[in-house]
Amino acid sequence: MRSKGFEGMRCSIADVLGALGDRWSILIVRDLLLGLSRYDEFQSSTGVTNATLSDRLKLLEKNGLIERRRYQTKPDRYEYLLTKMGKDVALVVQALAQVGDKWNLAELAGPPLKFVNGRTGEPVKLVPMDEASGLPVLAQDLRLEPGEGADDIMRWRLALKSSASGPTPESSEASS
Amino acid sequence: MRSKGFEGMRCSIADVLGALGDRWSILIVRDLLLGLSRYDEFQSSTGVTNATLSDRLKLLEKNGLIERRRYQTKPDRYEYLLTKMGKDVALVVQALAQVGDKWNLAELAGPPLKFVNGRTGEPVKLVPMDEASGLPVLAQDLRLEPGEGADDIMRWRLALKSSASGPTPESSEASS
Repeated sequence: MRSKGFEGMRCSIADVLGALGDRWSILIVRDLLLGLSRYDEFQSSTGVTNATLSDRLKLLEKNGLIERRRYQTKPDRYEYLLTKMGKDVALVVQALAQVGDKWNLAELAGPPLKFVNGRTGEPVKLVPMDEASGLPVLAQDLRLEPGEGADDIMRWRLALKSSASGPTPESSEASS
Repeated sequence: MRSKGFEGMRCSIADVLGALGDRWSILIVRDLLLGLSRYDEFQSSTGVTNATLSDRLKLLEKNGLIERRRYQTKPDRYEYLLTKMGKDVALVVQALAQVGDKWNLAELAGPPLKFVNGRTGEPVKLVPMDEASGLPVLAQDLRLEPGEGADDIMRWRLALKSSASGPTPESSEASS
């Protein structure tokens, strides 16, 4: 059995993962956010192979996350820029950085990268915020629910949660 | 030339991507957050192959993101739970969902999944917040700077930005 692709999963999370392709693509987007734009720069930054780098740049371009622009002729040379869509991935990159800084797996003296407010110089953190009140929401208060675009499998996933620990109508298969 | 691994990159983003492994792992974490816990459930949810699923569960366990717990003997059956560390990945999953909902690549009537405040029922959004003022920061005001843990390559990446095109004080190379 082959793994299904990420298409048609009816999940925004899978859609973004599908559009990005893989971890290398995320590092390329990170690099673009950091200001890198040229093939050689991505390679120096990540140590990725030529084959992987070419492939991921093509994929990101095809999926509308980056644009290729010629900045020199004879010989032609190109640079890469994030599209408006590609810039949205900053949110994912910041989330990854925030989680990684918390874990500090490499046991560094501090974060390698700081996200700051350009207007104030103060640190910026991603915070889950209640849209109505504008107040932060604690992790334990965050709840997942099916949205308008949910299909049967998303409803099934969410129904499993309620039938897990707690006593709910659907948890009939007691001893499976 | 082989692509280098993600170890030793001195980047929190790469560290988290390394700990997760790949896109399938992120979908498994999504499913765990949604309430799934058993092997068959992950398989039904994602359509992933046995080989990939076993491998990713082992990787996530090895990297401290999930725990395996026996819930039945004769025959032994196991379920998987997110560790404290694994639960932190919710931030990344929510960022992916938020970006994906904005793009709406599948052109759905609405988001498949809603993040709500369990106390109020109101929608919850990830917002980049100025830690000093508690106010949201606009995407265009977000700036990246080297942190205490930055190495030479991170400083090099960030130095490229200031020398690139954009309308910044440092952009002295006008006609590049």
